[in-house]
Amino acid sequence: MGEFDLIERYFKRPVNRAVLGVGDDCALLQPSPGTQLAISCDMLVEGRHFLSTTDPFKLGHKALAVNLSDLAACGARPLAFTLALALPRAIDSWLAPFSQGLLALADAHGCELIGGDTTQGPLNICITVFGEVPVVKGRSQALLRSGAQVGDDLYVSGTVGDARLALEVFRGTVSLPAPVFDAARLRLEQPTPRVALGLALRGIATAAIDVSDGLLGDLGHILKQSGVGATVDTEVAINLIASYAECTGARGQFNTEIKAEQWLGWALAGGDDYELLFTAPAAARTLVAAAADISQTPVTRIGHIGLEHGLRLVDGDGQYVPNTYSSFDHFA
Amino acid sequence: MGEFDLIERYFKRPVNRAVLGVGDDCALLQPSPGTQLAISCDMLVEGRHFLSTTDPFKLGHKALAVNLSDLAACGARPLAFTLALALPRAIDSWLAPFSQGLLALADAHGCELIGGDTTQGPLNICITVFGEVPVVKGRSQALLRSGAQVGDDLYVSGTVGDARLALEVFRGTVSLPAPVFDAARLRLEQPTPRVALGLALRGIATAAIDVSDGLLGDLGHILKQSGVGATVDTEVAINLIASYAECTGARGQFNTEIKAEQWLGWALAGGDDYELLFTAPAAARTLVAAAADISQTPVTRIGHIGLEHGLRLVDGDGQYVPNTYSSFDHFA
Repeated sequence: MGEFDLIERYFKRPVNRAVLGVGDDCALLQPSPGTQLAISCDMLVEGRHFLSTTDPFKLGHKALAVNLSDLAACGARPLAFTLALALPRAIDSWLAPFSQGLLALADAHGCELIGGDTTQGPLNICITVFGEVPVVKGRSQALLRSGAQVGDDLYVSGTVGDARLALEVFRGTVSLPAPVFDAARLRLEQPTPRVALGLALRGIATAAIDVSDGLLGDLGHILKQSGVGATVDTEVAINLIASYAECTGARGQFNTEIKAEQWLGWALAGGDDYELLFTAPAAARTLVAAAADISQTPVTRIGHIGLEHGLRLVDGDGQYVPNTYSSFDHFA
Repeated sequence: MGEFDLIERYFKRPVNRAVLGVGDDCALLQPSPGTQLAISCDMLVEGRHFLSTTDPFKLGHKALAVNLSDLAACGARPLAFTLALALPRAIDSWLAPFSQGLLALADAHGCELIGGDTTQGPLNICITVFGEVPVVKGRSQALLRSGAQVGDDLYVSGTVGDARLALEVFRGTVSLPAPVFDAARLRLEQPTPRVALGLALRGIATAAIDVSDGLLGDLGHILKQSGVGATVDTEVAINLIASYAECTGARGQFNTEIKAEQWLGWALAGGDDYELLFTAPAAARTLVAAAADISQTPVTRIGHIGLEHGLRLVDGDGQYVPNTYSSFDHFA
């Protein structure tokens, strides 16, 4: 199979919203009047972002999901994406499920594949995604990292820590009961981009980021860019791990050897969660609850924004807990 | 050096035309009213698109140049780009010259770096570039592959074949006198995107493509998408190789062992030329000459578009020449 056959067979699709899709030197997009284009780009490398044994269907899903997650964190509506793919060999048994997983998620979000590149090389998936954000009375509705205000509540969507836990099982550092592992593995391999929540939070959240490198590390970006500090409740955070509730919580039905500090580490610095971490005024709690409801996405208040710079962890009684959790760095 | 230091040190730059650049979940672009966004994406892999010994400054230039070349072929004005970079190690002695070569070309074209991704992995450079095309009275001014008409002239800009010739010298299949090799190597390592010519050809050219996989192969895309055929003059084509004129032509001052068929093969199917191949009505010859003049880019008429499908090669006397030239395919 040659390069052009490969594109024709798996990646050439009719476009609706784009003016021109795959097959020319450029794709053409005509943004709606009164909107800005939100653009993000994520590259996934074998061995670094996924294991060589990962199911190609799930990999196709994840490659787009992590990009849609960036649009979600910006409050942007997905429009289109480009795909650049380096492959050791052009094999049907890999390309067919990969393209199916990718395009199924794309269709679910009305996000069109408009162009890209394919080449021979070590497996590398690079997606650039485009979304639309309205500009209302000259003001962009984009959710930025820089808008957190002193007194704001701090929230996170869904669950965190389970993706890292699944990775640790693959690495052999912990073991888990099969049903708990299966659920955690789904979070690692097929994360859910919180697009609907991001859209619902426009005009409500003051700042947002998606949790990809770990909750505290990504919170650090909000704090730095907003020039504020934060306090995070570790008791709440540890309960955000779905596996923790299964194994150790009130509903706990499994015994594990995992210690509380380890659980907390995965919650605070696990990475690969693709949940939204966001701030909103305390006066907007009803609006946040409504946004969670409309988007059918659970959100949990895990702390608040303060004047004093830096990050403080407290336990359930409000006592300070030392912060020894660092986030993921690709070159550390 | 960590991931965020690396971005801060080499790739975070103030933006002018973009609303928001590097440092949030998404970049924000606000296209001008009455324009479309042209988008293209190219991935460069070590060993496939460049040699591991390539000077990082030149590699930075080339990585953006091949993307700008796609905008040129679309008649789009460069606006911005994203860079995704997989690197084995974050080393200053590589990153400093790479970013300098990249950003020097970006500055020359007013093309802003607005976002991207960096990760650890086998060296892979993926750039997505954004340009602007006006829409006049509801009609896009983009140059497409599909507009060639029977009777149109066929043109190519600059010179072709020299990049492939330099590659063959690196591969050891031919040898060249040093000054000829130096010039050819520059074409391989620092191609010139024909952005100004692409802009000048709006409203004049009926179809355009950039020559990256080889002249005949890329012409094939125009023919297929326009539903027409073409005749190409091999006598003109062989003289488009700058090295040929140096070695063998009227001004020839060097003797080489290279045969005419080999020269012609590099002209017609060399690849990596990044010249514009375009069609325009025979009645527009003066306008084409003016566009070449305004953009300070030489163009040569190498054939014409005909009704009969397929591609015909003729020699200087108009006699048919067998077509045994195939273009580059990354998976062939």
